[in-house]
Amino acid sequence: MSHTQRDIIDLAETSWVDGYRRLTEIVIPRPIALVATVDPDGNTNLAPFSFFTVVSSNPPFVAFAPQRIGRTGAKKDTLRNIEQVGEFTVSVVTEEIADRVNACAAPLPYGDSEFAHSGLTPMAAQRVRAPLVAESPVGMECLLEEIRTYGEAGGAGSLVVGRVVLMHLDPEVRDEADGRVISERLRAVGRLGGSLWCRTLDTFPLERPS
Amino acid sequence: MSHTQRDIIDLAETSWVDGYRRLTEIVIPRPIALVATVDPDGNTNLAPFSFFTVVSSNPPFVAFAPQRIGRTGAKKDTLRNIEQVGEFTVSVVTEEIADRVNACAAPLPYGDSEFAHSGLTPMAAQRVRAPLVAESPVGMECLLEEIRTYGEAGGAGSLVVGRVVLMHLDPEVRDEADGRVISERLRAVGRLGGSLWCRTLDTFPLERPS
Repeated sequence: MSHTQRDIIDLAETSWVDGYRRLTEIVIPRPIALVATVDPDGNTNLAPFSFFTVVSSNPPFVAFAPQRIGRTGAKKDTLRNIEQVGEFTVSVVTEEIADRVNACAAPLPYGDSEFAHSGLTPMAAQRVRAPLVAESPVGMECLLEEIRTYGEAGGAGSLVVGRVVLMHLDPEVRDEADGRVISERLRAVGRLGGSLWCRTLDTFPLERPS
Repeated sequence: MSHTQRDIIDLAETSWVDGYRRLTEIVIPRPIALVATVDPDGNTNLAPFSFFTVVSSNPPFVAFAPQRIGRTGAKKDTLRNIEQVGEFTVSVVTEEIADRVNACAAPLPYGDSEFAHSGLTPMAAQRVRAPLVAESPVGMECLLEEIRTYGEAGGAGSLVVGRVVLMHLDPEVRDEADGRVISERLRAVGRLGGSLWCRTLDTFPLERPS
């Protein structure tokens, strides 16, 4: 069917909070980067970000976009730590840990760790000081490539681009024969608008045309 | 449970094709940007990209990352058109049009339109020369902000950052009272690894902690 009837929203005449809501309702489903960082003293931080994408594969770069804090425009702890230390890890959020990951979105004072608050367990990485998350079957160790900030004050977002140097995969989520990660075993979850999350088990195949 | 047993993959010692496969199997579910462009002569192009994210909301920026063509490192038509014209639209991919959108991924000669090939219908936008897609209930008109390329040859990716100026929403996918877009009405689909796509109907709510 054709959708010829349309509400047309001029984003320049819309509050940025409403713009944010509409964008997060239509850019779905979004993968979730569970990002761990450390500050220069080694204090850990852990936070989920659903503005997250692969950028390239040779070498592999990923990017995520922490938003400035709404009322003040202040930087989130994750961004402050990466600016200072230049390293982070990204873990995949599974159905099993979704509620603990959600608890990491609570605002805590700078330096207080979401690991202790959420009950998730830090696990040492090999090439970066930021820890991995023991309860996630998939993690990536990343080196900061660059940060670019777009927009103004509250409602600004920073694209944090990092190079993936090591990938950690629990063999239980992989196919024994060819090593691929099987989504029914991984059971990753994603974000929709508002407070909705989605599973990744309701799937269908479409072969890429040649 | 803790995932203490782990395969560790050094991406510097992995072929970029294998790196690409693993990344697209673990960064899931990915939203799909159905991007329409025109070349300087007005010929239309339409292609889906699942490396796609919101960047900011004040003003609203989105980004997607077309990859260079595997064997040659050549630029895709979408990227060539945006470099020349500086405008594009992004439409949301619903379950109803998933197979037609997949047909748009077929390699066609430059200048041949995926609209004709797929059976999707171009619909004039208001502020950009690129068309919208009549069969999608949600579209965004975007002005190019910048393009930044990461990585090398085949396996390189370009982050195309655009400002969303107008949003088109079929009122049928919105809540009549508060105007939010309801995911059960939108029925957007996303990408997993390999040839798998996923629906967005298997959901659960988690209230953000305060």
